[in-house]
Amino acid sequence: MKTTEFDLISRFFAPLAESEPGAFGLTDDAASISIKEGRLIVTTDALVSGVHFPEQTPAHLIAEKLLCVNLSDLASMGAAPRAYVLSAALPGFVDDNWLESFSKSLASVQKTHGMVLIGGDTVATPGPLTLSVCMLGEVDEGKVIKRSGACPGDQIFVSGTIGDAALGLLSLHGGLAGLEPAMREELEDRYHRPRPRIDLGLRLFGLANAAVDVSDGLVADLAHLCESSSAAATLQAAKTPLSPPAQAALKANPELLTAVLTGGDDYELLFTAPRESAQALSRLALELKLPLTAIGSITESAEEKGEVRVVDENGSEISLPNKGYRHFG
Amino acid sequence: MKTTEFDLISRFFAPLAESEPGAFGLTDDAASISIKEGRLIVTTDALVSGVHFPEQTPAHLIAEKLLCVNLSDLASMGAAPRAYVLSAALPGFVDDNWLESFSKSLASVQKTHGMVLIGGDTVATPGPLTLSVCMLGEVDEGKVIKRSGACPGDQIFVSGTIGDAALGLLSLHGGLAGLEPAMREELEDRYHRPRPRIDLGLRLFGLANAAVDVSDGLVADLAHLCESSSAAATLQAAKTPLSPPAQAALKANPELLTAVLTGGDDYELLFTAPRESAQALSRLALELKLPLTAIGSITESAEEKGEVRVVDENGSEISLPNKGYRHFG
Repeated sequence: MKTTEFDLISRFFAPLAESEPGAFGLTDDAASISIKEGRLIVTTDALVSGVHFPEQTPAHLIAEKLLCVNLSDLASMGAAPRAYVLSAALPGFVDDNWLESFSKSLASVQKTHGMVLIGGDTVATPGPLTLSVCMLGEVDEGKVIKRSGACPGDQIFVSGTIGDAALGLLSLHGGLAGLEPAMREELEDRYHRPRPRIDLGLRLFGLANAAVDVSDGLVADLAHLCESSSAAATLQAAKTPLSPPAQAALKANPELLTAVLTGGDDYELLFTAPRESAQALSRLALELKLPLTAIGSITESAEEKGEVRVVDENGSEISLPNKGYRHFG
Repeated sequence: MKTTEFDLISRFFAPLAESEPGAFGLTDDAASISIKEGRLIVTTDALVSGVHFPEQTPAHLIAEKLLCVNLSDLASMGAAPRAYVLSAALPGFVDDNWLESFSKSLASVQKTHGMVLIGGDTVATPGPLTLSVCMLGEVDEGKVIKRSGACPGDQIFVSGTIGDAALGLLSLHGGLAGLEPAMREELEDRYHRPRPRIDLGLRLFGLANAAVDVSDGLVADLAHLCESSSAAATLQAAKTPLSPPAQAALKANPELLTAVLTGGDDYELLFTAPRESAQALSRLALELKLPLTAIGSITESAEEKGEVRVVDENGSEISLPNKGYRHFG
């Protein structure tokens, strides 16, 4: 006998909602939760098999990525995660083993980030596995960090390292064959398992003027931030923080710089801050054990707002064939 | 040139978010909205083309159904609609005309119900059109209507008429050929265009003990309500409120009673209320111009909680081949 939707929910998903009485064990029409006075932050991100992750990706990595890409959006707003709902269109191959692995991985991520599943919808699909999460976070009134606050003169910072996810995807597709297996593995892991920078986001209010997470690619997301802020930016390519495997990959093939600067899925935070924040940001980087690297500066907008000039060590402009992932490009 | 995701959002979806400053024109990573002190109600429902609606369904009807099935969940909790996010996996055939029709219909429904789009994710899919909405509603603290409050002795009420959507779907598939075209059209319209009973839901607190919306089918949803309430129910089939087209269809073929009692998609409210609410409910029905019909009563749970006995005019039990839509049955 095949599993009914109700069995499926009670076996695999209801345990993820146990700690929230207002989720009603996922048996009611909707959840009812209390929100402390302040701002509610709401984001949604969907993943389609074969589009956002390779079809053969194991269930636990899909679950992790699904939550982490949404968490990363909360991080960029400076929000604390609170709860999420899951909408899952499941093709026929999804069986109990798959669901067990998927739901265990959700449980692990939600525990790490102190949030809870409060609802969902599980439907059958003749198409690819399609997952959508809507995530709720909380921010104290007046403490939201927006994209639109960047000011000319701000330094541009990025957390962690950039380009690992794009190189990891390249490796998954058979590229980077010359790289040591351990390095390829590290890059692939960075592609599969984003590290949402929640702790950093919670500390940026008062230091940063604007923030965005790097999902479409460093240059594209910086362009989005500049467009929202009616500003422009100069990005110093040589200052982009690279992991040891990315350094090795670029040494073997310098043309990969384009993938590093325009590839997506890094899920680091890109933010702008006035010069006077620099010292506090250095201390914060030490405290969080997370590099925060200055990679350029915000400039006055010339004709075209949102323009990003990428320059090399000599200040000469580097032209990039494409500036980031465009979903319908 | 194909439309990029950003063009698509700014042309078709950003106008739906205009009235909410915290939606940031759909250009930021997340929305930031204020929620009044009280309970936040959160629900999500997904629709897959070919599963939840026929593939040839026009875009405006899909948009209407998508919002209305979610609104219906808010209605059953007694919540006022506030905002929603939309996650859309779009196949290749979706063009500007489709998007224009779809977004205009969203605009119309959200205006009717006083809510606003605050975010979304639009992705490409090689599979069927897959849409998911997460909707937020508000309820004053302590005024949530749950499934679990039904008490033995409560009368069971249902709003509007039941079975129209199931018969409408049958008609769309070529059934009910003997029925007048205008009647078939009325039934099909009821299938495509749910009427979420928000106004009723907002008035039920203090009158009803438990409520659910009829999405899986009258008997199945009553069973869910009973299960949550650790109760059982007797449903008097002959009291089920029927529209004139449904009456005509049943007259021509009495076996359609099964479809009426177990078919889904009515999106009426099913609720239980103590005897002393009867008069107030009569007045409310007149005021809202919406029939509220007593169709049975809640009984003590015997061995099996959630059991629903369906009886005919003589009190003899009617056995039903299946008790409602099971998504993975």
